[in-house]
Amino acid sequence: MRKLLLLLLCSSFSVHAQNDEVINTQIKEIYRQVLTQGKSYDWLNHLTNQIGGRLSGSLNAERAIKWAKDELEALQLDSVWLQTVMVPKWVRGTFEYANIESSPGNTINVSICALGGSIATPSAGIRANVVEVKKIEDLALLGKDKIEGKIVFFNRPMEADLINTFEAYSGAVDQRYIGAAEAAKFGALAVIVRSLNLRLDDYPHTGVMSYGNLPINKRIPAAAISTNGAELLSSMIALNPKLRFFIKQNCKNYPEVRSYNVIAQIKGELSPEKIILVGAHLDSWDLGDGAHDDGAGVVQSMEVLRLMNSINFRPKNTIRLVLFANEENGLNGAKVYSQTVKKNKEQHLLALESDTGGFSPLGFNFDTKEKYLNKILSWKSYFSPYFIHFFGDNGSGADVSLLKSNAKVLAGLKTDPHRYFIHHHSEMDTFDQINKRELEMGAATMAALVFLTDQLGLE
Amino acid sequence: MRKLLLLLLCSSFSVHAQNDEVINTQIKEIYRQVLTQGKSYDWLNHLTNQIGGRLSGSLNAERAIKWAKDELEALQLDSVWLQTVMVPKWVRGTFEYANIESSPGNTINVSICALGGSIATPSAGIRANVVEVKKIEDLALLGKDKIEGKIVFFNRPMEADLINTFEAYSGAVDQRYIGAAEAAKFGALAVIVRSLNLRLDDYPHTGVMSYGNLPINKRIPAAAISTNGAELLSSMIALNPKLRFFIKQNCKNYPEVRSYNVIAQIKGELSPEKIILVGAHLDSWDLGDGAHDDGAGVVQSMEVLRLMNSINFRPKNTIRLVLFANEENGLNGAKVYSQTVKKNKEQHLLALESDTGGFSPLGFNFDTKEKYLNKILSWKSYFSPYFIHFFGDNGSGADVSLLKSNAKVLAGLKTDPHRYFIHHHSEMDTFDQINKRELEMGAATMAALVFLTDQLGLE
Repeated sequence: MRKLLLLLLCSSFSVHAQNDEVINTQIKEIYRQVLTQGKSYDWLNHLTNQIGGRLSGSLNAERAIKWAKDELEALQLDSVWLQTVMVPKWVRGTFEYANIESSPGNTINVSICALGGSIATPSAGIRANVVEVKKIEDLALLGKDKIEGKIVFFNRPMEADLINTFEAYSGAVDQRYIGAAEAAKFGALAVIVRSLNLRLDDYPHTGVMSYGNLPINKRIPAAAISTNGAELLSSMIALNPKLRFFIKQNCKNYPEVRSYNVIAQIKGELSPEKIILVGAHLDSWDLGDGAHDDGAGVVQSMEVLRLMNSINFRPKNTIRLVLFANEENGLNGAKVYSQTVKKNKEQHLLALESDTGGFSPLGFNFDTKEKYLNKILSWKSYFSPYFIHFFGDNGSGADVSLLKSNAKVLAGLKTDPHRYFIHHHSEMDTFDQINKRELEMGAATMAALVFLTDQLGLE
Repeated sequence: MRKLLLLLLCSSFSVHAQNDEVINTQIKEIYRQVLTQGKSYDWLNHLTNQIGGRLSGSLNAERAIKWAKDELEALQLDSVWLQTVMVPKWVRGTFEYANIESSPGNTINVSICALGGSIATPSAGIRANVVEVKKIEDLALLGKDKIEGKIVFFNRPMEADLINTFEAYSGAVDQRYIGAAEAAKFGALAVIVRSLNLRLDDYPHTGVMSYGNLPINKRIPAAAISTNGAELLSSMIALNPKLRFFIKQNCKNYPEVRSYNVIAQIKGELSPEKIILVGAHLDSWDLGDGAHDDGAGVVQSMEVLRLMNSINFRPKNTIRLVLFANEENGLNGAKVYSQTVKKNKEQHLLALESDTGGFSPLGFNFDTKEKYLNKILSWKSYFSPYFIHFFGDNGSGADVSLLKSNAKVLAGLKTDPHRYFIHHHSEMDTFDQINKRELEMGAATMAALVFLTDQLGLE
């Protein structure tokens, strides 16, 4: 029975799509294959539970690259290769520790984690008074007098009433990214930043921070505090503005190390020089196992090529998978890939990224010219049986965005945003938080867009 | 600040909506209120964790009715009352037990649960050979010779490639509902039914079954087996068709008992005789705490009235909440409510139910005339900022469907369907499986449709 279906499928896929009915049948078969024969969930189980968190420069990142290359080679695609990328190496060290000292000797422990790229505290830690602010601009209003010698506590929550949680993230992430650099200018000893999480819980969320051009001797340690910890600290400061906070962390930056983008492709039959890219980033933060960010995108992208290969679909254009190195703290994988594309003058029809978690797909965000967007919008009805309805023009994704000058369409898979920031960059980003069916729906949705772009073209 | 917003809101809500901009602002405020001030999540925490599963006729069902009435009275709505409903009382008794005996004395335990309404086994249990079937029709093909004296094992999985999991459920539920009655006709001793769950796991899923008009002395026990258990049993039967299955359960049907629909309303200012109903069912199965089915719908419906009352919104039409008794195994609450509506000739503009789990809302399913559907479709753009896109015409919900002759529009909130059947009717339907934001998005989406129907009308 399965063989018969595959035969039917191959023959229908080998005839170029001529009408809606044929296309609808083909799209249905894509979803059926992924939902019943897909490998994405098993792959993600291995990547997260057998390898785990895979921060750039770590042994796990190397293991993940080897694993991905081996799995892709086992698929017998047309080619699989590695592209060298130099990446930063930052190591968390032993677990961070913090407490609130309401009066001498009277302390309450709170959950913190170092922000990625932060320096360590002195080995004895830092104990100091705290000044709570909501915005970067508050620092200048307070001035050096009120900040020097203290720990600055950035405590602006993400806005719950922004429906797209990624907007709420964008609206709050400056505290994490530049908070330390800015507070250091006013003589702060360290910064504590409220975790970028819409929910109140006990998990601190890390993420990249930058000292900008601050001289090394001016840099101060930066850590995230859980949302519950932030609420507690804020209420205790209200009761006792003289309380002291203790923080100790021993993270460290090392010189850059060699890593790789993992690339694989199925060569196009008609226009092999034209590339349709699917991709995601293989690196992750170190606190969880990177299941949603971005293990999901990795295995979904791999599934697109596995599916096409397994049904013996021969695309008109080259279908290329790129698993980018170092999205989280450098974007160096995307930089190297895009530089190579420019140098080789490679044309990308579509560059589609998945990096919003393995939740139910809603559709896509695009960065493209109006004529290409209109072409894609003409395919909307093919997606509606799958609850895929969102075709936005609000950007693509961090990695593919660098391909702007060499791609007609940049796109990002858009998944349900409501749960993402519970998991993002925290211990809560683990495989058990992934639903198999939601993950597979995302992979099938990516495959459908790749298939339509390949068969129908963008012009 | 909050007071100011409320003042602005009240004044804007008191002016009848005149244009899209005003309406968009009002809808935005509905979502903002629910996402930042909503009570649905706290209510659900109480209903599930302080009360728990609340099967019709149980003490917990009574406690839930009292709790809901008290909470609604505390909101100081225009009226709150109970409507008497006689409901079945079925009691599971001590935990069910089952094993597979591959050879005498060599047994493996498997997870089962009695189906709702089933009779008990004899107190010593039933041990017999098993005949596995996929469909009801297989029974006639096998005939009495091959079935008599055996346990019939219905093992047709839900179809994973049906995108709408509710369709997959409909396609498989006959085994559970009429499997025992049909197998009894061929002399089966008991039936075991594969749980209606798309995932492979160890949780059996209960649900209502019926003996139809089978005489009492012909009835046989019926139980669900977990999907993992079903896979194991099937593979062991393939190895050894002579294996025996042991099942023991002591559930019991009692005479009907008195229960109640809980009803509350805000009286309309212009047309109090016209009713906009929001509702859900307050009863649940007994294995979990009924968080998704249908605690979510209960607290979302309550939230619609809380919100409208808290912002002092005076609707044109009467906004009525109905928490139906006994949806799970009788629909008696909906029957009594609809009979009363008919008797009193009450007109419903809209009857909107939430009973697809507390997941991210996608939109609504409607059962209505084309002209009303077209009117509602003209409101689609008001919903699009909230990722609400689905406006189907594929039915409404079990409870409100009985109002067909007295309502212009029947509707059901449609939520993301992918995870629902992991939880449905099983131990996995618990509060910890609810995401606050997804739950609140559903409540706000219901409130928005109620608001638009009230303010803009259906004609």
